[in-house]
Amino acid sequence: MNSVGKSWLLLTGLIVFYIIYLLFGALVFSSIERPVEEQLRRDMDALKQEFLNQSCVSAASLENFLLRVLTANKYGVSVLRNSSVTSNWDLASSMFFANTLVTTVGYGHTTPLSDTGKAFSIVYALIGVPFTMLVLTACVQRIMYPLVIAPVCLLQRSGLEPRPATVVHFVLLLVLVVLCFFLTPAAVFSVVEVSWSFLDGLYFSFISLCTIGLGDFVPGTQPGQKYRPLYQVAVMVYLFVGLMMMYLLLRTFHKMSDLHGLTSFLQLPRCEDSDVDEDREPIVDGDSRTANHVTEKTASRHLDPASQPSYNTINKG
Amino acid sequence: MNSVGKSWLLLTGLIVFYIIYLLFGALVFSSIERPVEEQLRRDMDALKQEFLNQSCVSAASLENFLLRVLTANKYGVSVLRNSSVTSNWDLASSMFFANTLVTTVGYGHTTPLSDTGKAFSIVYALIGVPFTMLVLTACVQRIMYPLVIAPVCLLQRSGLEPRPATVVHFVLLLVLVVLCFFLTPAAVFSVVEVSWSFLDGLYFSFISLCTIGLGDFVPGTQPGQKYRPLYQVAVMVYLFVGLMMMYLLLRTFHKMSDLHGLTSFLQLPRCEDSDVDEDREPIVDGDSRTANHVTEKTASRHLDPASQPSYNTINKG
Repeated sequence: MNSVGKSWLLLTGLIVFYIIYLLFGALVFSSIERPVEEQLRRDMDALKQEFLNQSCVSAASLENFLLRVLTANKYGVSVLRNSSVTSNWDLASSMFFANTLVTTVGYGHTTPLSDTGKAFSIVYALIGVPFTMLVLTACVQRIMYPLVIAPVCLLQRSGLEPRPATVVHFVLLLVLVVLCFFLTPAAVFSVVEVSWSFLDGLYFSFISLCTIGLGDFVPGTQPGQKYRPLYQVAVMVYLFVGLMMMYLLLRTFHKMSDLHGLTSFLQLPRCEDSDVDEDREPIVDGDSRTANHVTEKTASRHLDPASQPSYNTINKG
Repeated sequence: MNSVGKSWLLLTGLIVFYIIYLLFGALVFSSIERPVEEQLRRDMDALKQEFLNQSCVSAASLENFLLRVLTANKYGVSVLRNSSVTSNWDLASSMFFANTLVTTVGYGHTTPLSDTGKAFSIVYALIGVPFTMLVLTACVQRIMYPLVIAPVCLLQRSGLEPRPATVVHFVLLLVLVVLCFFLTPAAVFSVVEVSWSFLDGLYFSFISLCTIGLGDFVPGTQPGQKYRPLYQVAVMVYLFVGLMMMYLLLRTFHKMSDLHGLTSFLQLPRCEDSDVDEDREPIVDGDSRTANHVTEKTASRHLDPASQPSYNTINKG
């Protein structure tokens, strides 16, 4: 098999394994949390019934009742009649939770109730977060050529200078991402979710794709939604592809900043990390392009005495 | 002023500006959200009083009451008597919220109520998230030498081979981070926060420093806590330094993987991004170290036809 085939096989393997990992997480979370949730739900129903049966409501009994209601609500168990049909820990919801864990979005609209669930969350995220970053990086690498390198090349061929070409390309990419991953989803969410306005949808998309994940708006949590599991899977795919595009945007911006000397102005590591250059400086010294780069780096050299043996001078072979 | 001085001045400037940015966000959030929150709080008090005054509690009236209670609770407004003293939008809490936005932790224990607040959150995070990444990167760059390069160098001087030295160093760094940023804070939280166990503290530290931020455990939200603003600032500092250490750990791991050929096995970009190498290949070809690196890259070349003009071949000068 040639190397392109191998590379795609590796990517497919990674994605398949990613889905299996999410399913595995979903199954474990579901089996750990569902019994605890059901117990809490039964307790809440009993509590509500007991509250209704008492002849007069005193301030103290109301306070006590509300305290327990709000605590249960924190864990996603509502006492309201029409929201008690679905579980927060069915397979689709558990997978949604697992997904928000490993992508670090973390809405927190449902959280593990039991100590076992909390401990498993830690272990699951410990493996899942780096693994998700790996899958995202591998995917971004594959879309770099069609979405970044080829368009910039096309713009240059059409007569633009290299630097303006990258700026024009970045602006176009930004417009595309905003349109496809913010405005369109916002419009869709404002239609699908009854109580969401367009701003709410936009706010959700933004807060999610920045991995902030406040969790005040979470799709698929309203009572009586049709095809809820399917909808949740669709949102998960949207989140994954959206995060991929955000990462692509970030990398493109970083590369553009390099090209315009912004990163060296801020004395930040270049997208092409400077460590490797230090290794090869004596060899590339004659190259005119590197000459001023070397001058730029004399400053950072003081911060990082590369004359001593270090990570940078260790042979990779 | 020499370049070291300049570099530190830049870093100090960045950090000062970061704090100003957080304060500015806190002031805006506080001024937008506080009146809305107070109105909601008054409404909830009236609702509760009205509920208590009615002669008999029917299922329908309870349902309606609970619906409004739970909606208000979603925005951090509780009807419970002892939690109504403090606002979620005082200066310290607003700053804490601003901090969780820009670090992408996003607990969501308090969320903007008004449309203005939501729109401002988007704009604020749009600038704040990249800026925070910038400050974090700049800080990590400064601690790279004392915490990574110098110790590895020391281990090598003490007779270890380069590769084992980096592994030993990474393990030591990992132990240090786990001890100082997970176990110790967990112990502190389990003492300071009345209802938290040690596992809860550990769970909070982990969920926060991975920027998942579920928000089921948030320090400084219990009623009647002493020195709450000071405590919240301390947590913010902990989060920032913790994130810095996580980033350092990630970079160190990435560098170690490079050295052990793990990144090239997974066909991922090396920590020292490969793009720049492609530029210089003809020049460094004679170097024995690069020889096998070139072979490795022949595979990725197929994916990314560097023979055409692209980002990689644009002159940086």
